[in-house]
Amino acid sequence: MSDNAEFVLVMAGGGGTRLWPVSRRTRPKQLLTLGGEQTLLAATVARAAALCSIEHTLVVTARDQADAVREALPNLPAENVVIEPAARNTAAAVGLGAAVVHRRAGGDARFAMLPSDAFIGDIPRFVTTAKLALQHARQAIVTIGITPDRPETGYGYLEPGVAIPPGANAVAAFVEKPDAKTAERYVAAGYLWNAGMFFMSTDRLLDEADAHMPELGTALRRYVATSDLEADVNATYPALPSVSLDYGIMEKTKGIRVIPGNFGWNDVGSWDALPIIRPADSDGNVRLGEAILSNSHGNIVVSEPDAPLIALTGVDDLVVVATRDAILVMRKGHAQNVRDVVDAARKCGRTDLL
Amino acid sequence: MSDNAEFVLVMAGGGGTRLWPVSRRTRPKQLLTLGGEQTLLAATVARAAALCSIEHTLVVTARDQADAVREALPNLPAENVVIEPAARNTAAAVGLGAAVVHRRAGGDARFAMLPSDAFIGDIPRFVTTAKLALQHARQAIVTIGITPDRPETGYGYLEPGVAIPPGANAVAAFVEKPDAKTAERYVAAGYLWNAGMFFMSTDRLLDEADAHMPELGTALRRYVATSDLEADVNATYPALPSVSLDYGIMEKTKGIRVIPGNFGWNDVGSWDALPIIRPADSDGNVRLGEAILSNSHGNIVVSEPDAPLIALTGVDDLVVVATRDAILVMRKGHAQNVRDVVDAARKCGRTDLL
Repeated sequence: MSDNAEFVLVMAGGGGTRLWPVSRRTRPKQLLTLGGEQTLLAATVARAAALCSIEHTLVVTARDQADAVREALPNLPAENVVIEPAARNTAAAVGLGAAVVHRRAGGDARFAMLPSDAFIGDIPRFVTTAKLALQHARQAIVTIGITPDRPETGYGYLEPGVAIPPGANAVAAFVEKPDAKTAERYVAAGYLWNAGMFFMSTDRLLDEADAHMPELGTALRRYVATSDLEADVNATYPALPSVSLDYGIMEKTKGIRVIPGNFGWNDVGSWDALPIIRPADSDGNVRLGEAILSNSHGNIVVSEPDAPLIALTGVDDLVVVATRDAILVMRKGHAQNVRDVVDAARKCGRTDLL
Repeated sequence: MSDNAEFVLVMAGGGGTRLWPVSRRTRPKQLLTLGGEQTLLAATVARAAALCSIEHTLVVTARDQADAVREALPNLPAENVVIEPAARNTAAAVGLGAAVVHRRAGGDARFAMLPSDAFIGDIPRFVTTAKLALQHARQAIVTIGITPDRPETGYGYLEPGVAIPPGANAVAAFVEKPDAKTAERYVAAGYLWNAGMFFMSTDRLLDEADAHMPELGTALRRYVATSDLEADVNATYPALPSVSLDYGIMEKTKGIRVIPGNFGWNDVGSWDALPIIRPADSDGNVRLGEAILSNSHGNIVVSEPDAPLIALTGVDDLVVVATRDAILVMRKGHAQNVRDVVDAARKCGRTDLL
């Protein structure tokens, strides 16, 4: 089978608020640069270029984010933006993308499903790992498991099983986000982080959907065969079950393989992650954008170009984020509090800030 | 002598930065409302109405603040805005105001010199005290000394001497801002805060200027006598010595009287003073303007109407102040840090923020 049968499905439909106030419904995390030269989405697509041509790179996104996606990816062929008519979680979204790949290249075509909003520091190592995963995907569903550098409680873990050369292991189990003590045990036992990257053939995905999510399987078979994909998707997609790919399929099927990945992956799940992906100054402050810092240490300061100037003096270990219309001030290490703020903004009618 | 010979001189030329970023050169503290119904300047003029008519109320201000003063005081007669052609400190400013009073009502006319940027909580007690001071001003220079409620190191103090009925004492000494230990001794010994309010006749001020600041005395005599006051002031005022009234005259002359004042005076010298003049909520937060506070205590949060929405979560004892173009974040109790920030803004060329 030639490389012409390899695709990348970039999943770009998320709309989280964990990087509020910079991230919004219409400007989700994958459309932020976070101090880099390009958006996380554009960086994901750029990395994919080492795996397949841009013609084989598809971006699955929400209808109200499609324009922003096209703007962020001017070189992406228009027909490679795959639109979810409604948000139905990742099983349906990757199924839709897989159906499009199947229509173009058949059931043996393999794809890499990649989240669009992760940071990857070591691109050559990522490419090597992903290529190996695509190779294994001829026989199995494959995932990349990130080698943990801390007992993180915010991720699911993978328990590796027997070795499957070259370079892979069977997945013995997918396990949910652990508590702190369990996380330490997982790390000591060599468990890996589930980073949501999966590699498989389109036939394999359709078969798994038939087996574990038959309603989805039926829809995907129709999407592969129909002469009017858009009409069929619009008619049936919004009624599909809203289930994650992990829960709906991966945790239920057998024979998944995992390849350990060690390439500076970070999902930038909160402002607290910024010091991991961007350098701090000599006072331990990480800043994106203009700011005045005086006698202040260990802060994370983010200022959009059209925001007021931020000035910090005599404060340590804060997160201060400013946009044109909102300012967040919180203590570092309490990223989960952002949700409270967003909820409060919603309750007091400031939907313009969401 | 009738009440027709009593005037109020409101000193409104200051341009401090201690309430930055809300206060600016062209929007000094006296032009802020700080959550009240009117600006501190308008409140000062409103209090003066119990002492004299609006026709006898003069506001001494800087040329570049005159328009803002007129806008803040629409009922003030246009000719009662006295403009300093240059900033020459308070001795020259009050001298200029006194000369204008002298031209209108003669040397026996008495005036109350009142700063425009102080908060006063108990207006009836202030009025009673000020009326008593104007009565004593027939014979002497009089000041009001605020009864301290804490060993403040940010103010000068007055040492009271022998009683001079009704209700006054001789001033035994003016003393400079003390260190913390000295301040405690002052408070224990019954010293009073120098709040910069002085009451005297115009002749008395001119005589004192002649005696202690002869260059100023000569200029003031000319301002009293000239047929073209504006031309004379423009020609000579900018070259007058720049000295405070306290240092140039009050600390050198004899026979000054002080009347103790206890009427909720606060000079709002920094954001830290806000909880003294505005009520806190049940979490100890004082807020001016819209803000979202979640699990946050003891903060001071100030948001101008055209500023981004401030959201605090999980932080205590901060000062957060936002305007359309600047955001200040500092620790409560470190108000002196504001100067560092303003200096830094100047150094990096952001004069638009000063």
